[in-house]
Amino acid sequence: MSVLSDRSAYAINPILEEDELAEQLDRKGKNVVKLNRGDPPVYFKTPKYIIDAYVKALREGKTYYSDATGIDILKDAVQRRYSKMYRLNIPTDGIIATAGISEALQFLNDVLINPGDKAIIFKPYYTAYIPRLKLAGGEPLFENYDEKDEWNIEIEHVMESIKRMKANGKMKEVKYMLITNPNNPTGTVLKKSILEDIAEIANDNGIFLVSDEIYDEIVFNGAQFTSISKVAKGQPYMILNGASKDFDATGFRLGLMLLPESDRLSLELRERLRNFAKVRLSVNTSAQYAFAEGMSNEKEHAKAIKYMVGEIEKRVNYAYGILKRNDYIEAVKPNGAFYILPRLKMDMLKVKDDKEFVVKLLEKEHIQLTRGSGFGAPNHFRVVLLPPKGILEYSLNKINDFCESISK
Amino acid sequence: MSVLSDRSAYAINPILEEDELAEQLDRKGKNVVKLNRGDPPVYFKTPKYIIDAYVKALREGKTYYSDATGIDILKDAVQRRYSKMYRLNIPTDGIIATAGISEALQFLNDVLINPGDKAIIFKPYYTAYIPRLKLAGGEPLFENYDEKDEWNIEIEHVMESIKRMKANGKMKEVKYMLITNPNNPTGTVLKKSILEDIAEIANDNGIFLVSDEIYDEIVFNGAQFTSISKVAKGQPYMILNGASKDFDATGFRLGLMLLPESDRLSLELRERLRNFAKVRLSVNTSAQYAFAEGMSNEKEHAKAIKYMVGEIEKRVNYAYGILKRNDYIEAVKPNGAFYILPRLKMDMLKVKDDKEFVVKLLEKEHIQLTRGSGFGAPNHFRVVLLPPKGILEYSLNKINDFCESISK
Repeated sequence: MSVLSDRSAYAINPILEEDELAEQLDRKGKNVVKLNRGDPPVYFKTPKYIIDAYVKALREGKTYYSDATGIDILKDAVQRRYSKMYRLNIPTDGIIATAGISEALQFLNDVLINPGDKAIIFKPYYTAYIPRLKLAGGEPLFENYDEKDEWNIEIEHVMESIKRMKANGKMKEVKYMLITNPNNPTGTVLKKSILEDIAEIANDNGIFLVSDEIYDEIVFNGAQFTSISKVAKGQPYMILNGASKDFDATGFRLGLMLLPESDRLSLELRERLRNFAKVRLSVNTSAQYAFAEGMSNEKEHAKAIKYMVGEIEKRVNYAYGILKRNDYIEAVKPNGAFYILPRLKMDMLKVKDDKEFVVKLLEKEHIQLTRGSGFGAPNHFRVVLLPPKGILEYSLNKINDFCESISK
Repeated sequence: MSVLSDRSAYAINPILEEDELAEQLDRKGKNVVKLNRGDPPVYFKTPKYIIDAYVKALREGKTYYSDATGIDILKDAVQRRYSKMYRLNIPTDGIIATAGISEALQFLNDVLINPGDKAIIFKPYYTAYIPRLKLAGGEPLFENYDEKDEWNIEIEHVMESIKRMKANGKMKEVKYMLITNPNNPTGTVLKKSILEDIAEIANDNGIFLVSDEIYDEIVFNGAQFTSISKVAKGQPYMILNGASKDFDATGFRLGLMLLPESDRLSLELRERLRNFAKVRLSVNTSAQYAFAEGMSNEKEHAKAIKYMVGEIEKRVNYAYGILKRNDYIEAVKPNGAFYILPRLKMDMLKVKDDKEFVVKLLEKEHIQLTRGSGFGAPNHFRVVLLPPKGILEYSLNKINDFCESISK
């Protein structure tokens, strides 16, 4: 019998699970195309004005611990950004800087989840939601983003599930409902009407609402992004965001937990989350100065994000065009983030599941994707669409050819 | 009833618990002397050669996610450091970079502790050990560093406790034994003979041994530091270390979990800990390059650490001299790290406990310390001895005067 904890079995990240195989192939000189990590700085250099601020902070000796919840000028910058972009006032105490959304998810679950508690999570979900919930002893209650409705939310299904929970006296166990907008892995920007329904359901049933909005500025093809703050005024909710995507700085490891409201639960959460932050002392100090400048220098940011999103739009649409020619898959066109999640028409293919598809593709064509089942979407696969056209053209055509080669 | 998790009550950091009061005083213009945070870069600028490497990595665009367990050159640097300093070979797979020791403690507890499991922790302990253990559902089994024996370990007591646990069939619940050497909060470098006994006890009873050696180069007054690796060869153990103290870079948030051995448990732990690391993707990438250079450039490091430890030695001894004149306290002279943990002679003082002592001192003299009970040492207080002589002179004399003023 192992002496390891039972929970250690939940520490899984499907996005990286083919890394060892990819590394073996790389060592054999196979040069794997990695379309598994949503890592903008690999393809778009982090803007110079952000790096300059980082360097300045380092040269000024800002290498000590910061306040556990973040430096003042970072919080000021967050307040200005949300005031300007969303006309939202976030009190200073409602802002906590974290080591990426990864740590924010850990705090969220640690502060709310008792063993046996539940959280409403929508499939397909971002992979880290599940381990963090389960490591805290919780269980997901799955609802769906509906592929037939361009990955928007099946509201009726949510309402029925809650009715059932209520009838069974189980609502107390439901600690939060978590949506991702724009969504990873589908690249969907949720419709405003859907968000209004979600906020109303949460409010009517006393469910704490969490919206992961890390891609809030990466929206294109004419889509309109709606922050949860626009539809959840006056009820307790939390926004997750950070430096990784909009500010093209994944390696900084800086996230944000935002609690704009001042109801009793929000106040209690702020207090406790501050304590969780104190236990680990601080996040990287000089990187916080860089992130603060990233938000504060609006002119430079506008330039950088415009260029990056313009490029992403072109790349996503180009990729979509290639994948559309593939008769063995079907994909909803993304209008946010930089992912696509095509469905494999399994009855036409000689693989038993998406895992086999992804492993064989990697072995044969040296292209690394992530299996859809890792996001709660079996028979799908996720492709990161950040690389330049040449790489997308090469690898997506390879995917198409590979499907042909394994067709029945 | 609160909807917060039960465990959220464990998120406590005594080191920062007077921060709000200190901030209020600061806002009133009181200029609080903060002797509560062991934060070297506040007093010793992080060495320029380390900052240069950090800047170089940033300018080169190393702002993407790194490998979840750390970049290759960091692991190479760790291997060279341990080979040179301790003649210890650590396999690449036995090295995991973490967001400070804070995250390493989280991984350690998450991977080993099931609800109800135990860990042997020695009092006085570093504050974060307890919340991280309890957040994972575990309970500490306390043993003692013995103040009468200059804060070395009471070996007989440890042996008796284990005997008792064995007699009650409870040994299976004991998942690890954690020592800190040099110790925070006492500044003690543990004797080699004590470490030999500890390693033997752990080995004889199948207890996984963890040694927090974050201050391993901050040793003075002629003391000799012994790494656990010198006495625990061939049995499963883990070393915790990082950039914060020896490399004077707390704000980088970079720690290390080292598993040098290749027994079954060590291999299993490496595998699982890698999975925990993957769930949160990576630690700050450019900071890893800086830390790697910190270790690799041995000439620059030797210069920097020699200067810093020389200064610390002078400051600690100077501070000890002042505190020795105080009849209301008694202190063991430190020979490592940069803390002192004097005992209050409570029968001579008009305060009910160390908490009241620390709060009143802060209110009246505007000096922030940490209560000893926060480290499991009631009736003590911890002072950080990093500031220059002028500040130490001022504040330690204030402490002495304050004791006089509250004497019976």
